[in-house]
Amino acid sequence: MSDVSPRAVVLLSGGLDSTTVLAMAKDAGYDCYALSFDYGQRHNFELEAAAAIAAQASVTAHKTIRLDLGSIGGSALTDPDIEVPQAAQSDAGIPVTYVPARNTIFLSLALGWAEVLGAQDIFIGVNAVDYSGYPDCRPEYIAAFAKMANLATRAGVEGQQMTIHTPLIAMSKGEIIQAGAALGVDYALTVSCYAADEAGRACGRCDACRLRSAGFQQAGLPDPTRYLS
Amino acid sequence: MSDVSPRAVVLLSGGLDSTTVLAMAKDAGYDCYALSFDYGQRHNFELEAAAAIAAQASVTAHKTIRLDLGSIGGSALTDPDIEVPQAAQSDAGIPVTYVPARNTIFLSLALGWAEVLGAQDIFIGVNAVDYSGYPDCRPEYIAAFAKMANLATRAGVEGQQMTIHTPLIAMSKGEIIQAGAALGVDYALTVSCYAADEAGRACGRCDACRLRSAGFQQAGLPDPTRYLS
Repeated sequence: MSDVSPRAVVLLSGGLDSTTVLAMAKDAGYDCYALSFDYGQRHNFELEAAAAIAAQASVTAHKTIRLDLGSIGGSALTDPDIEVPQAAQSDAGIPVTYVPARNTIFLSLALGWAEVLGAQDIFIGVNAVDYSGYPDCRPEYIAAFAKMANLATRAGVEGQQMTIHTPLIAMSKGEIIQAGAALGVDYALTVSCYAADEAGRACGRCDACRLRSAGFQQAGLPDPTRYLS
Repeated sequence: MSDVSPRAVVLLSGGLDSTTVLAMAKDAGYDCYALSFDYGQRHNFELEAAAAIAAQASVTAHKTIRLDLGSIGGSALTDPDIEVPQAAQSDAGIPVTYVPARNTIFLSLALGWAEVLGAQDIFIGVNAVDYSGYPDCRPEYIAAFAKMANLATRAGVEGQQMTIHTPLIAMSKGEIIQAGAALGVDYALTVSCYAADEAGRACGRCDACRLRSAGFQQAGLPDPTRYLS
């Protein structure tokens, strides 16, 4: 083995979870390549947050791929005809904010970049606790993706194993925030709200805001989020 | 069951294989939604071919998603710094024209659209005979993708099964052409060459041209390809 750090592709949305994952990947000694998507999401301020977070984390590279998921439709996050709910949705099954096949699409593009970089590690901030309504956040899904990835790639054919790291998958929002804070994450840079204004100020009422706010309470840490009201 | 035809998403590159698959999906009674990608490929004339083919096949919808795979790099098909080989590559392992994770990325986006459409069928023209050097053309890869897809989606959670159809996977190029011709495919509309000119005229020398030309010979059918010289 050389002294060179292994490379990892880290999916970075600009939200609380992926920012924590980036800090964890850095702390684990990876040379980090952050990947963001401009996918027609309503909350484009997330991308500005991602750029600021990537810069502060001194990643080796940060790439933003433009991808028009809005043309596929089907989600409140990309389709202006579907309203983002303000009320909690705990009993409603899969939320309308679910973007069809989103994690599969993002992981596939991360896989392509990882292959070009010669990286065998991909980090993604999925969480099966707070987002149990999203099918593509479950451990069995991630395991199936990894198995497929190893059959899809040149590296897999040549015997290298691609690992999909999901360090947050079993953590509560409070635990995630505590872990990130211990690694020095500045959560004031992150944006979680589905309906923030152009300056990135959070609505304080949507599902994402409720989860985030409760997470800081659970963590026993001050909430640095800038709210609209 | 209703009289309504089941919907299928058909990946359509504008090449010989995917055009044959579209004819097969139509022949099998599917209501076809064709999906193409503008992914920074050198041969952009393929997209014009795809549009003409989709129109002639009277698909219900044809969508072209823009996706900058060139920014990831790593393939002669999207990276201007990598030369497309003119000589045959039969013993060279995975060809340089391989685009990292391409089929995974394309199938993932097809999966997203299928989920929005309520479709349970995706067609892709992968072939394990002529393209055995591409890891993501093998049956075991397709099976792993299907398994992952059923864990990734709302439909899968609700018990519906997504099927990835690969009708060409074990066919020779000659057999593909015979099957398509029997279904009325006009191969003059299709483009296979990696280095065609802006009018879609084929070089006649690259791997794709060699395979295609040999296919028409095997099929015992006249080759309608327009060659440069």
